[in-house]
Amino acid sequence: MPNDIAAPTAISMAELLRARYGAAAPANTVPGNDVIRALVSHRSVRAFDADRALPAGTIETLVAAAQSASTSSNLQTWSVVAVEDAGRRARLSEFASKQAFIRQAPLFMCWLADLSRLDRLGTAKGRKFEALDYLETFMVAIIDAALAAQNAAVAAESLGLGCVYVGALRNKPEAVAAELGLPPHVMAVFGLSIGYPDPARPAEIKPRLPQSLILHREQYATKDEPAAIAAYDGEMKRFSARNGMGDTDWTSRVVSRVGTAAGMSGRDRMRAILNALGFELR
Amino acid sequence: MPNDIAAPTAISMAELLRARYGAAAPANTVPGNDVIRALVSHRSVRAFDADRALPAGTIETLVAAAQSASTSSNLQTWSVVAVEDAGRRARLSEFASKQAFIRQAPLFMCWLADLSRLDRLGTAKGRKFEALDYLETFMVAIIDAALAAQNAAVAAESLGLGCVYVGALRNKPEAVAAELGLPPHVMAVFGLSIGYPDPARPAEIKPRLPQSLILHREQYATKDEPAAIAAYDGEMKRFSARNGMGDTDWTSRVVSRVGTAAGMSGRDRMRAILNALGFELR
Repeated sequence: MPNDIAAPTAISMAELLRARYGAAAPANTVPGNDVIRALVSHRSVRAFDADRALPAGTIETLVAAAQSASTSSNLQTWSVVAVEDAGRRARLSEFASKQAFIRQAPLFMCWLADLSRLDRLGTAKGRKFEALDYLETFMVAIIDAALAAQNAAVAAESLGLGCVYVGALRNKPEAVAAELGLPPHVMAVFGLSIGYPDPARPAEIKPRLPQSLILHREQYATKDEPAAIAAYDGEMKRFSARNGMGDTDWTSRVVSRVGTAAGMSGRDRMRAILNALGFELR
Repeated sequence: MPNDIAAPTAISMAELLRARYGAAAPANTVPGNDVIRALVSHRSVRAFDADRALPAGTIETLVAAAQSASTSSNLQTWSVVAVEDAGRRARLSEFASKQAFIRQAPLFMCWLADLSRLDRLGTAKGRKFEALDYLETFMVAIIDAALAAQNAAVAAESLGLGCVYVGALRNKPEAVAAELGLPPHVMAVFGLSIGYPDPARPAEIKPRLPQSLILHREQYATKDEPAAIAAYDGEMKRFSARNGMGDTDWTSRVVSRVGTAAGMSGRDRMRAILNALGFELR
């Protein structure tokens, strides 16, 4: 098409799969195409070129991609706040483990599980929509938000931009809600920092667990899991060493992240916080 | 690249946006590219060519795309069961509102929120991982599963396949868990039926709410919501009429879907069901 601005990945599918899986790369995939190579090429970018602005229309394009994702029963129980203001990004960064890239990247998209739109519609119709009080409907909203955000992330990367999800936006949900002016029944599920990657600090594709652990055929099975995890620990140790992150393996990172409730950065309070934000979670 | 098997969308970005938003189409997007046009072209396919098998390696390719999506702290708290067996698809269809396309499409991928892998790892290390008992960590798992699934859906569509998410897989989670042999701390979040679309029954791009309602700048705002919803009700009424779904508007569908707990197809029990599946949701 004319005016295309994509940079298709020049790396072959086989090379990408080796980067993604190391020695455990599957050999039997289909040849792939530009879209699939773009997906498999993903790496989270945490170092941005703070001086390079996004082209006009970028946000509208990302939102069009996001809204094109599936949404449960077409309920569209999500919204997004696009934050460009540097002061607001700095404040949100403080709430999210002070991560520097939120200040650095020119755009911070806050993805919202949003049941308030339907709640307002119910009020306008003179009734209370009962399903909004249930855990199930909250799950619908966070799934809707996640599907939408992933389309936006894929679209951003196709434009040569880099991005990184920010789950730490859930460390202080009440403070984030106040900063973004969120009404009740809305929660910022995660952020997405978006900008041009800093060419001086390129990110590497991160290895994942082998398909043998993630993909089950017909029924769930766990055979050879310890050996596969040990091999993956080796891949992650080498990845971490190459990327100046020490020589920590996957298992150690898991232990520090989920071993104790104290390691949850306050998110062990999530149920009470969601109740306070108007989600009854029945 | 050689061996590419993608069919890039020949429709222009402007035409796609008109299909997606009707009169409310944003005029100021960037020109787009093959990836973005593929995303905006999405339509859920519910009529499949049951006789056309998937190319060898399709599942491995979709899983490679799925695993390339971001995952919170690289915890990878998801798995997928690829169901091809016709008998099992028929049984799962029974649990999921008897939707016929689950039997028709050759592949049904069941996306799992999976905290059991980390639980087994903890057991192997002789300790209990405390964070696994919290609502927050369950949210991590369903977000992980959703990001992964969306990459698989985008990859499938780039291969000329069609797909549809099946939230009704949550109508009977215990029955689904038994059919798929799921251990405790695992839940099937949704299904994804995948196959070649039936060329005799093409699907149309479904209109979405205007960006003015979904996209907020700097802070959440609700101005002109009732008028925008009324306009969207008109778009959806025309879409429904064109597609043999009556002339129901969006608001009416919302009311029937979330108006009452009885309309939740049993999912009002979700919290108790999740507890029974081993998720404490503290």
